[in-house]
Amino acid sequence: MEELRIGILGFGTVGRGVVTMLQEHGDEIIKRSGVRLRLVRIATRTPSRDRGVDLGDVELTNDVYRVVNGDDIDVVVELIGGYDPAEALVRDALNSGKHVVTANKALIAERGVGLLDLAANKGLELSFEAAVAGAVPIVKAMKESLAADPVERIYGILNGTCNYILTEMREKGLSFESVLADAQEKGFAEADPTFDVEGIDAAHKLAILAAIAFGTPPNFSGIHIEGINHISDVDIAWAMEMGYRIKLLGIAKRLEGGVELRVQPTLVPESSMVASVEGVFNSVFVRSAYAGTTMYHGRGAGEKPTASAVVADLLEIARNQSAGAKCRVAGLSVLTKHLKPLPVLDMAELSGEYYLRLAVLDRPGVLADVTTVLARYDISIDAIRQKGRSQKDAVPLVIVTHKTTEQRIQSGLKALEALESVREKPRFIRIETGFA
Amino acid sequence: MEELRIGILGFGTVGRGVVTMLQEHGDEIIKRSGVRLRLVRIATRTPSRDRGVDLGDVELTNDVYRVVNGDDIDVVVELIGGYDPAEALVRDALNSGKHVVTANKALIAERGVGLLDLAANKGLELSFEAAVAGAVPIVKAMKESLAADPVERIYGILNGTCNYILTEMREKGLSFESVLADAQEKGFAEADPTFDVEGIDAAHKLAILAAIAFGTPPNFSGIHIEGINHISDVDIAWAMEMGYRIKLLGIAKRLEGGVELRVQPTLVPESSMVASVEGVFNSVFVRSAYAGTTMYHGRGAGEKPTASAVVADLLEIARNQSAGAKCRVAGLSVLTKHLKPLPVLDMAELSGEYYLRLAVLDRPGVLADVTTVLARYDISIDAIRQKGRSQKDAVPLVIVTHKTTEQRIQSGLKALEALESVREKPRFIRIETGFA
Repeated sequence: MEELRIGILGFGTVGRGVVTMLQEHGDEIIKRSGVRLRLVRIATRTPSRDRGVDLGDVELTNDVYRVVNGDDIDVVVELIGGYDPAEALVRDALNSGKHVVTANKALIAERGVGLLDLAANKGLELSFEAAVAGAVPIVKAMKESLAADPVERIYGILNGTCNYILTEMREKGLSFESVLADAQEKGFAEADPTFDVEGIDAAHKLAILAAIAFGTPPNFSGIHIEGINHISDVDIAWAMEMGYRIKLLGIAKRLEGGVELRVQPTLVPESSMVASVEGVFNSVFVRSAYAGTTMYHGRGAGEKPTASAVVADLLEIARNQSAGAKCRVAGLSVLTKHLKPLPVLDMAELSGEYYLRLAVLDRPGVLADVTTVLARYDISIDAIRQKGRSQKDAVPLVIVTHKTTEQRIQSGLKALEALESVREKPRFIRIETGFA
Repeated sequence: MEELRIGILGFGTVGRGVVTMLQEHGDEIIKRSGVRLRLVRIATRTPSRDRGVDLGDVELTNDVYRVVNGDDIDVVVELIGGYDPAEALVRDALNSGKHVVTANKALIAERGVGLLDLAANKGLELSFEAAVAGAVPIVKAMKESLAADPVERIYGILNGTCNYILTEMREKGLSFESVLADAQEKGFAEADPTFDVEGIDAAHKLAILAAIAFGTPPNFSGIHIEGINHISDVDIAWAMEMGYRIKLLGIAKRLEGGVELRVQPTLVPESSMVASVEGVFNSVFVRSAYAGTTMYHGRGAGEKPTASAVVADLLEIARNQSAGAKCRVAGLSVLTKHLKPLPVLDMAELSGEYYLRLAVLDRPGVLADVTTVLARYDISIDAIRQKGRSQKDAVPLVIVTHKTTEQRIQSGLKALEALESVREKPRFIRIETGFA
């Protein structure tokens, strides 16, 4: 029987998932491809550690080059993560004629172009379904199913850790810090959660999706990134009161003159489907010219969901091999020679609705002061609410605006901050509404 | 430039969508495939009708064989629908060496095996993404992304007309008949709505999905089908009161000993994501061994969404041609020689939770009578509610059971019906809860 010989770099949780999936479902894969996916070798720094998996005649080695350069390997699965040495190893694997499957979003988002080019020139696959939204087959959907249907915008809940934290904050009324500590204890957040809570991981995924959608090289550095570490339980509660939930969204829009690219905590209507995406799940909403909005949802991380995406890429390579197909689909869907950078629109140029929260003195005339300032900047008010009474402390005043520009909001907030009756730096969060 | 020459059978709304999409986005398709999708000819019974599309040098003909047998055609797009002559035309097209793309769910579900076999033997594609859930790329997701990950069950909202009717009935408190009449007026329901409201259309789609999921030939005739035409607004209101919504679900489960296949109105928890799928949208929830539940959502019908799926199949064929790939993925994912029918489990063997609605006399002892009967059949009660008082008329008594078997429910209901205090044939609806 035809074979596809596999070597794996890195033997952590995802690696273990891939190994058990190949063992348990190898026969099903044969029924669908006519090809046996045979695991030959795994390179790990700790070959002697017991992972509770019976490896049979699979070789364990601490020499990555026995995988990357091995004559008996057809595909290298890169599960090391990070930039170095992952980049060099993927390059070496391609240079020695091996397909590569990776779950490494940072690598594809920040250094992917050169590697994808190299793969294309060699007639090899460099596949990365697992890099975006785990088990959700959004990369294939965008590269193939929506490839003929121009994408107008993407909204993604792309980081399960952040979504879990926001869900817990809302449901339990707890602060960011206390939920994060709890999530770390439960293993839903890393010991160093920076990449997740500061929005960097979501931005890596967004850079990849936007590149596929708009036919550009991934533009990670062009993304405006805000994390959830400054989101207060007070804003979550106010958002609920105003009929919204707060989600960390990756947003990419194709507009006249360029693209909008940002990862931001965002208010979404509580009746919209995106609001019902809770906990560690990932969801991607894609609006394209003909399909309208299609949505893809599932587990964004974890041993088995990530393994499912990795093995799907392996099966794809097996089927390509069996059918004699080389580079059937370009790495980012658009053929390399047609990839074209697009200008990223400045945040100040964007328009939308906004949630504002001020701390104001509780005395006559304050509401008139605030609304006069907003009127001066042509910011019109959709809803306004004040709660609580206090002789000496400031009380919260929450405003939802109609559509306006970020520039006006920024100027308006500066003017508000200068008012004597406004006691703290005003908070603002963007609102997104178009999910269907 | 390489070309893929296209002929279309049928020039209704979907045909018009395909034509305009190829016109508007042909250049984007070239950037992704290196191939020009060139529309050569359209066969229609009414070539002279004005469809508001500038066809340029595309030939209009009323002779289907000029498409099916034309030497200048590489792919035939079948948009006629129904069984005959669609089946013969698809067969002729394959026999004359042309790939086929179809949106015809009835054809694939009921007569697909022979046609898919023929295509495979000829080294041709017979693609049908548009046949299931319109713009939602569920066929590709199941044939490729989940192909290595054994599917355990599928829940699908597969008919937009039914989902629209159920949504309107719930939101407006209207009867099935009045909403249907309104839907027909708005064009959301056919003049003859039988295929939709009796669940046949959903069953065609379910048969296709289950075949791909479980590696069987499509088994339309094995599906237990109930439509929504007997769903009463009373049950919709009661379902809401008990914390549920009613959806027409296509359900396929792989169980020990066989498969469960049914299309039924079903109670789903109002907090579950499936409950939030409203109006004409389609959604498919797939649980597989490694990915867990993944979900796919979008517009299930309409000119542009269906065209998007048809053109995605055309782009796929263009990419295959360009990469030299023949029959990369088998028609139903599993290679034909490995397709194997599986026994369909009898409804009586199924187990689950149930919603029961009785009309009982409002007098002492009735509740004791009813609960005694249920206890005799070992049916345990999760919730029970009675509302309204009446000296002479029957009042509704609604019960939600714990998990039990369909057999017990059927026997229990027969015994309940025999009670003197039960005034009408009891109603029952199955409940499904496992959507994550």
